[in-house]
Amino acid sequence: MSVAGDDVAGFFARRDTLDPDAYLELEFTFECAGDPRVAAAHLCSEQSTAQWKRSGVAEDFRPVYGAKVLELESTLIGGFSLELPGVGNTAGVHRCRAVVAHPHGNFGPRIPNLLSAILGEGVFFAPDIPIVRLEEVRFPDPFLAHFQGPQFGIAGLRERLQAFHRPIFLGVVKPNIGLTPAQFAPLAYEGWMGGLDIAKDDEMLADTAWSPSEERTRLLGELRRRAERETGVPKCYLANITDEVDRLVPLHDLVTRHGANAVMVNAMPTGLSAVRMLRKHATVPLVAHFPMLAGLTRVPQYGVHPRVFTRLQRLAGYDVVIMPGFGPRMCTPEADVRACLAACTDRMGHLRPALPVPGGSDSAATLAGVHRKVGSVDFGFVPGRGVFAHPEGPRAGAKAIRDEWDRISSSL
Amino acid sequence: MSVAGDDVAGFFARRDTLDPDAYLELEFTFECAGDPRVAAAHLCSEQSTAQWKRSGVAEDFRPVYGAKVLELESTLIGGFSLELPGVGNTAGVHRCRAVVAHPHGNFGPRIPNLLSAILGEGVFFAPDIPIVRLEEVRFPDPFLAHFQGPQFGIAGLRERLQAFHRPIFLGVVKPNIGLTPAQFAPLAYEGWMGGLDIAKDDEMLADTAWSPSEERTRLLGELRRRAERETGVPKCYLANITDEVDRLVPLHDLVTRHGANAVMVNAMPTGLSAVRMLRKHATVPLVAHFPMLAGLTRVPQYGVHPRVFTRLQRLAGYDVVIMPGFGPRMCTPEADVRACLAACTDRMGHLRPALPVPGGSDSAATLAGVHRKVGSVDFGFVPGRGVFAHPEGPRAGAKAIRDEWDRISSSL
Repeated sequence: MSVAGDDVAGFFARRDTLDPDAYLELEFTFECAGDPRVAAAHLCSEQSTAQWKRSGVAEDFRPVYGAKVLELESTLIGGFSLELPGVGNTAGVHRCRAVVAHPHGNFGPRIPNLLSAILGEGVFFAPDIPIVRLEEVRFPDPFLAHFQGPQFGIAGLRERLQAFHRPIFLGVVKPNIGLTPAQFAPLAYEGWMGGLDIAKDDEMLADTAWSPSEERTRLLGELRRRAERETGVPKCYLANITDEVDRLVPLHDLVTRHGANAVMVNAMPTGLSAVRMLRKHATVPLVAHFPMLAGLTRVPQYGVHPRVFTRLQRLAGYDVVIMPGFGPRMCTPEADVRACLAACTDRMGHLRPALPVPGGSDSAATLAGVHRKVGSVDFGFVPGRGVFAHPEGPRAGAKAIRDEWDRISSSL
Repeated sequence: MSVAGDDVAGFFARRDTLDPDAYLELEFTFECAGDPRVAAAHLCSEQSTAQWKRSGVAEDFRPVYGAKVLELESTLIGGFSLELPGVGNTAGVHRCRAVVAHPHGNFGPRIPNLLSAILGEGVFFAPDIPIVRLEEVRFPDPFLAHFQGPQFGIAGLRERLQAFHRPIFLGVVKPNIGLTPAQFAPLAYEGWMGGLDIAKDDEMLADTAWSPSEERTRLLGELRRRAERETGVPKCYLANITDEVDRLVPLHDLVTRHGANAVMVNAMPTGLSAVRMLRKHATVPLVAHFPMLAGLTRVPQYGVHPRVFTRLQRLAGYDVVIMPGFGPRMCTPEADVRACLAACTDRMGHLRPALPVPGGSDSAATLAGVHRKVGSVDFGFVPGRGVFAHPEGPRAGAKAIRDEWDRISSSL
């Protein structure tokens, strides 16, 4: 059953006629060759109840189960702005922005079903819409109430680290791949002694034959406690436990028993639902890394705005979200980075704020710029080679960053 | 440490000097502004051991842990072909194809770590490469030996359905959202009676308040057995158990106890690792649906070729892979669909072939075309509205498809 004629109006609604607690609000941009109203109705139809009645039965599922266009703006443009399959040389192309109310009762407070609804076949295969991007998602409080969100959040993390009124300093131990635990551990120790709050595994370093999590976390735990004794301040070893989902909880227990006091799980490769499962069990902060996300988020007109994933990572329960940050290396417009920063800390029902960590080729030389662009001290700073390839070693690399922060903060 | 001068050669290798069992082969296309050899070395460096030695230590991790360029072709083009962040108005842009050997010992036979390596920060943030696509991945047999792959495969599925020498006929019960189990079940029954092998839940219909899996599968199980008695042939109810990962195994047990005899899990939203976990436990065929994948796979120069995900779904243990098929609606070039079909059935070590189901707005009218394009009977055909919005009802809709197949096969 295609959407045409009288059908179109059934996929539109005035916001004040809907129960706001029953709907997600999804903001899309798209380009279409036909009538924008019909295209927007298709977008709603396909993501909810495409065939909204049984053959031969007088019924209409749209009032309860249909997604509905709340706002629609369109501008006539010269033609499609991107050469994708399905895009023709058509005149009369419109670029549109639509806000859609999607009834979350269609699926309930479940991450895989949420993702299937907001990024599924209905969104990416709506007739007449070859180019579409999900720009933003807003959740009503009763939906968010089903999720735990961050266990510690920014305040809890600062308390654990006794680090207030300044950025949190992380360092990714490098070389990331190939070091034995006995070679790896002293580098982290040097980083802590130079002033790092958190020494971390690279997102590519997990539980391997040549660096088993058990041995690595045992050595790192010992040196972390030594660094704490010697410096008098708390230190954190962030262990990457990215692994098959049925190993997450056992690995969490193993590494925390041995002295890791935060764990990282690569979000998309492992799955946000697995992170939500781990959150129910975790006793330490959860940290997200961003493999795979660039593939979905980098094309300006197509796919997903990265802030949507920032929100979803917070929803899943991450306390810290490492994300592509500022600078040309990270291929991310500054406005997009800022939007992701905001999605970590703006209001999302009862969910605690997550600490944003905008990363990418950082060192003492980039700290002032990142701080200025973030516009607050509520961020993590995460060099890798900027500490561990320092010509005088990681202690000097970390100290250079702390010295640079002292210089910056003295002029605030 | 940037890759320059003598460093570049350390990220290249001749194929005959490497142990083929120790490496994945990754095929990339990319566009770069600088020297293609330096760019390709960056691509390898960043996805493996970017800082390949400790500061002040005489060592080199590249021979064992470095990804290495095996093949590189480049063509000078007028400029970047896609306007992405990080892309400038540069002269001297090359379009390149590179085959990279990636040592899987860096992470081991784990899906989340595999995804982090082949689609991670290293691939999408390599200096000088703003546009990149992973086109193909080849796994050595010793790596594949760690994975179970499909439990039934095409042959096992045909045996269960007693359906040989013809396509498998699926139907997605519609309306997909809003029907109570008591309203839903008779539609599936009618579809089976008309000739469907498999009646299935839509990918958007899971375990909800208005259609709980327990009640739906109980009613569907009863009617499935009735349809089997009345037709004398096996029938299948494919239940969508997409849900949080810690509910997959309990839901599998619930729905199969009540009479579902195959289960669907939306692959990307739930996570391939969760599917691998379910595979260890499952007693019925596992079926994949494709939400989220279009966001990664539709841009011809950027992201991931869809056949890579077909292979990964087979690796995770899916017996059936529903994928965007032929026709303008699905915005997928025919060559891409064919590549996905091949990835279901070509040689992947000991892994059984998976049944490809190229879908999209099908009905009796599209069957001949799909069959001709697939070029064999080893596919599933999956109409939704083409059966369930038939003006004479789903039995007539399904019968029209079986009649059409009889017509096609009589002229083969």
